[in-house]
Amino acid sequence: MTKPLNSNLNVDALFLGPKSENAVFFREMMDYAVSEHMHWRSGFHPEDSALVTSIDRYEHNYRETLYRTEGILNQLSAKLKNTSIPFFSPRYLGHINADTLMVSNLAYVMAMMYNPNNCSYEASPTTTDLELESGLDLCQMFGYDSQQAWGHITSGGTVANYEGLWVARNLKTLSLAISQHPETKNLLSHKSQKQLMNIPTTEVIDLISELKKQGVFNEIRDMTCRGIGVKPEILGKLLVPQSKHYSWIKAADIFGIGQENIIPLPVNEHYQTDVAKMREITFSLIEKGEAILAMIAVVGTTEVGAIDRIDEVIKLRQECEERYGASFYIHVDAAYAGYACSLLLNEQGKFMEYDELVKHHHELGLIPENINWPKQGVYQSFKALKHVDSITVDPHKMGFIQYSAGAICMKNKQILDLISSHAAYVFEDSDVHSDSPTSNRGILGASIMEGSKAGATAAALWAAHRLLPLNINGYGKVIAAGIVTANRLLDKITNVQPIKVGKYQFEMHIMPTPDFHMINFSFKEVGNTSLLNHNILNKRIYELCSYSNGRAYTNDLLTSSTILDYKEYGDTPRYYAEQCGFSYSEWKEVHHIYVLRAAVMTHCLRNKEHFEEYWEQLKSIFVKKLTQIVDEKEKQLHQRLDFDTSFLS
Amino acid sequence: MTKPLNSNLNVDALFLGPKSENAVFFREMMDYAVSEHMHWRSGFHPEDSALVTSIDRYEHNYRETLYRTEGILNQLSAKLKNTSIPFFSPRYLGHINADTLMVSNLAYVMAMMYNPNNCSYEASPTTTDLELESGLDLCQMFGYDSQQAWGHITSGGTVANYEGLWVARNLKTLSLAISQHPETKNLLSHKSQKQLMNIPTTEVIDLISELKKQGVFNEIRDMTCRGIGVKPEILGKLLVPQSKHYSWIKAADIFGIGQENIIPLPVNEHYQTDVAKMREITFSLIEKGEAILAMIAVVGTTEVGAIDRIDEVIKLRQECEERYGASFYIHVDAAYAGYACSLLLNEQGKFMEYDELVKHHHELGLIPENINWPKQGVYQSFKALKHVDSITVDPHKMGFIQYSAGAICMKNKQILDLISSHAAYVFEDSDVHSDSPTSNRGILGASIMEGSKAGATAAALWAAHRLLPLNINGYGKVIAAGIVTANRLLDKITNVQPIKVGKYQFEMHIMPTPDFHMINFSFKEVGNTSLLNHNILNKRIYELCSYSNGRAYTNDLLTSSTILDYKEYGDTPRYYAEQCGFSYSEWKEVHHIYVLRAAVMTHCLRNKEHFEEYWEQLKSIFVKKLTQIVDEKEKQLHQRLDFDTSFLS
Repeated sequence: MTKPLNSNLNVDALFLGPKSENAVFFREMMDYAVSEHMHWRSGFHPEDSALVTSIDRYEHNYRETLYRTEGILNQLSAKLKNTSIPFFSPRYLGHINADTLMVSNLAYVMAMMYNPNNCSYEASPTTTDLELESGLDLCQMFGYDSQQAWGHITSGGTVANYEGLWVARNLKTLSLAISQHPETKNLLSHKSQKQLMNIPTTEVIDLISELKKQGVFNEIRDMTCRGIGVKPEILGKLLVPQSKHYSWIKAADIFGIGQENIIPLPVNEHYQTDVAKMREITFSLIEKGEAILAMIAVVGTTEVGAIDRIDEVIKLRQECEERYGASFYIHVDAAYAGYACSLLLNEQGKFMEYDELVKHHHELGLIPENINWPKQGVYQSFKALKHVDSITVDPHKMGFIQYSAGAICMKNKQILDLISSHAAYVFEDSDVHSDSPTSNRGILGASIMEGSKAGATAAALWAAHRLLPLNINGYGKVIAAGIVTANRLLDKITNVQPIKVGKYQFEMHIMPTPDFHMINFSFKEVGNTSLLNHNILNKRIYELCSYSNGRAYTNDLLTSSTILDYKEYGDTPRYYAEQCGFSYSEWKEVHHIYVLRAAVMTHCLRNKEHFEEYWEQLKSIFVKKLTQIVDEKEKQLHQRLDFDTSFLS
Repeated sequence: MTKPLNSNLNVDALFLGPKSENAVFFREMMDYAVSEHMHWRSGFHPEDSALVTSIDRYEHNYRETLYRTEGILNQLSAKLKNTSIPFFSPRYLGHINADTLMVSNLAYVMAMMYNPNNCSYEASPTTTDLELESGLDLCQMFGYDSQQAWGHITSGGTVANYEGLWVARNLKTLSLAISQHPETKNLLSHKSQKQLMNIPTTEVIDLISELKKQGVFNEIRDMTCRGIGVKPEILGKLLVPQSKHYSWIKAADIFGIGQENIIPLPVNEHYQTDVAKMREITFSLIEKGEAILAMIAVVGTTEVGAIDRIDEVIKLRQECEERYGASFYIHVDAAYAGYACSLLLNEQGKFMEYDELVKHHHELGLIPENINWPKQGVYQSFKALKHVDSITVDPHKMGFIQYSAGAICMKNKQILDLISSHAAYVFEDSDVHSDSPTSNRGILGASIMEGSKAGATAAALWAAHRLLPLNINGYGKVIAAGIVTANRLLDKITNVQPIKVGKYQFEMHIMPTPDFHMINFSFKEVGNTSLLNHNILNKRIYELCSYSNGRAYTNDLLTSSTILDYKEYGDTPRYYAEQCGFSYSEWKEVHHIYVLRAAVMTHCLRNKEHFEEYWEQLKSIFVKKLTQIVDEKEKQLHQRLDFDTSFLS
């Protein structure tokens, strides 16, 4: 076997590190970035006479201004040091946050000084190219055809989701517009009104080409909802997992669809969209004559990291097309777990078969043999992504880029014409859609939701993708570290003995086998039968392990929390409540359970010895926190205190 | 007179400078930012054992990874140096770009390393506060009551405009929802259907409070278009200046309003919204029974920097309320010129009377006596901003912040409840709307359009506002430098002798008296009567003075251009065409004129001697460029060339 490229990537060398271990390198590179830019400035037309001389700089108010600048930076630094959250540390086990890549931080700074604006090529001849190149990297990771697809950077996953829905909505009304225009109505004369609202995306894309050839596309486009406004009653329903991220609630409002046109899809016992119910709901809507505006599936929910069965969504769409002649747009929100797709691609960027993949993960030491990741269903989901119409993925999550960097990938760039403010032409090669480096990208801002945007973000993403290929040898290696650590924690918490504090004992309960690397767990007081008290206990633990307890910097552990609620998850959380020892009737009474939640992203604990040491430390922190709660309880017996510890039995 | 605070601000000490004059300071501060962060990391739980030892760092693949990182940064730097645009230089006279503030670049880097996410307070306890503080700074600059107003950062002006329209749209349907709910319909029973669609913003805000008191707000909110979807036919018309920025075209699409519901307002001979026509159109719509969804006015158009008469818009709304009982939402897009409001505020941040202001500008040397800025109308516009409902302003334009930083200010933060995903409560103090530093800001992402967002942007903006107060002593000083330079250029170009190149002569023509500091000019070949040829000549000049001519770095001058078109400006550009010597019939035939366009932002030429030297240099560059064009022409006589120079007579 020939030695694969980049096989030698060392994960620890990618980050500044928990103790700034790479301080020397980082500082040197930062200095390089600054020096390079300064040389660029001073080398620009050296013949120009100095506008600011050393005499000017000696002026009193000149120096005063510099000192004031310094003073403000001192103040800012004090604020940041005082109240920032140490995401970089393995002691942070909370939100989807960890250390970020040195290369992307440095690339950002380097490009920021040039201040490119990717809204228009004229203001960003370097970084517009980097944005489109990085977008294509992501498209390729998902298995899209890079000749057809396109991707670009958004300010975050929320805006990426908006763009997906925007395209879906405008696409939905194109066929109706075609059928209403005298010159084009014969194109679709064989379709009923109902069929017009259910045309497959691929057919709509063909229609776009046809309209452009006939020279009527711009006219017809003005007759879609973009021109005449939205008619929610004909658009149909937006199917979104019940656990719906609030960006979809906002999206239904913004795009004029109306939140009441969201149909929630219930989740199964693994917090994934329930396939049987999804099918039932979809069929029933179609049978009732309702159009489906779009189906949203999630690859990595923000609350438990659940991964929907994308392959089942694709299968369902095929069935709907065959059985009913009804199709719909599919958008996947893979903001959180999208980059994990890289773990399924070999060194050449090709999808591996499942057995080959598992073997390869073991051989490379990415995933040890005792850890089962990806589960078959998760694997099938990732593999099916290439069939969906658009995908949200957040570089500022599993891309390990600093904020803000979201992205959207579209399977076929032609659908951009439905949202773009450009006049659309038959020949795309010369306009913004083209990915040839020599073509004119024109005004990117006219093809996307946002306008002016930092080219520096593109530089950061591009640099990260160059250093870490989007396969098993690059991002795969970094993301695997988190998955392994999450699974080790799962194992430890599952088997840990109850923690004794005075006369109390606390069991730990963790939700089983996560799809990705988010774990949800809680502390259960032995003997407590009240779910409400359980919730109060765990909320108090969260408070003690978060910014709300005061300075995060001096805390031993930082975590996050969430509430698994009947409204969002139906009866699914009952399984976890029962696992913790609460009766079904108790669940039915309370209908929510408070859990501690951690996206385990740290790259530092992939080494087994490091992890073992960490776990011992973690246990002693748990003891300390529980002791504090017990102490609060005892004090409360003597005096009235502000916080509620009445929950301890 | 006591010495005012910050009177000593030295503008040259704010920027890295055209030759990196402040290199030493910048480097020192960058090093400080990096060191501070590293200390923060290494000081966090010093008892933790090292996870990456020096032995680890000596591993071959560790060093290889670092060298690869360096290699990628080398590549990036080469790309940036090769094709970036030297915005920092006075030789750049184009888009709304200039050097950016050192303090905001440094603050960004400082905060970026901590990677706060302002979506949620939990992930950004430092920078959420800085965002809201900076937002309030802007509100106060515009004259909003800081107890009622709120402002926040968006990824750019486009998203800020979206948020303004989002609020306006949802607000428009609240009264209808109230009238349809059994428990609240009596609140508005005295209103006709038509009146319901024309309720003043202030009354709607009172209704929000009332509904909250009655505990039905959330329910009613679900009955607005947010819940049930948009009905474009009842929302009414969106009035937008005819020169409409494409963000409004996109916005009408996104929000389901439909682009055909945009009513363009014609511009007058100064490219401002024509007051008489605006009044006529508005009255006529109301008389026809049409609702007005919102009126958009622009403070600084991106093409000529025109400033609409905001005072006239306010006056019109009052009249509509009095005459017809019909009101509408007013949003001002002050993305470009908003920060110039600081020039109207004295050292205490109070609006000055016009005469006092002019005197003060002269006394402080900000605006010399021979320059008339602001014109009375511009002054009245800024002064009226405090009466509008919301304002877009871009820190990444006249805030001299690097990309991306837009902002929106809302006069009354209660209208946020119409777009927020929070349940809304009667008592606001404890939730995200509060500006008390000790209150819980909760999830900012649930009250705004975007979700995850870089807290570093807030740090950059906050630091800039601390260094440069939003008044005559801070931003006023920097912005005045550009205004003065623009006016000097106006004067020079107006009086310049025709430039002789061989047998050709070229006059320069500049559009008169800009409202802000954008100038539009063109070169006119003496004797040419063809507007088409004139356009081709100036397009060629643009090509020679932009990235499209190859490496911008080696160019002598960089500018931008725009086309003043009949579709966007009606007959207004005829005045400029006539000024250049083209007949009205020629204008009617061609209906567009190509101009060179420059937002004059440089702070380096406020000194008269520097400017004189610069102007001499500029003239010789013009000669050089025109010579090149003449040479192209002569060569073309001998051989067929790709570019079109047939326009020279």
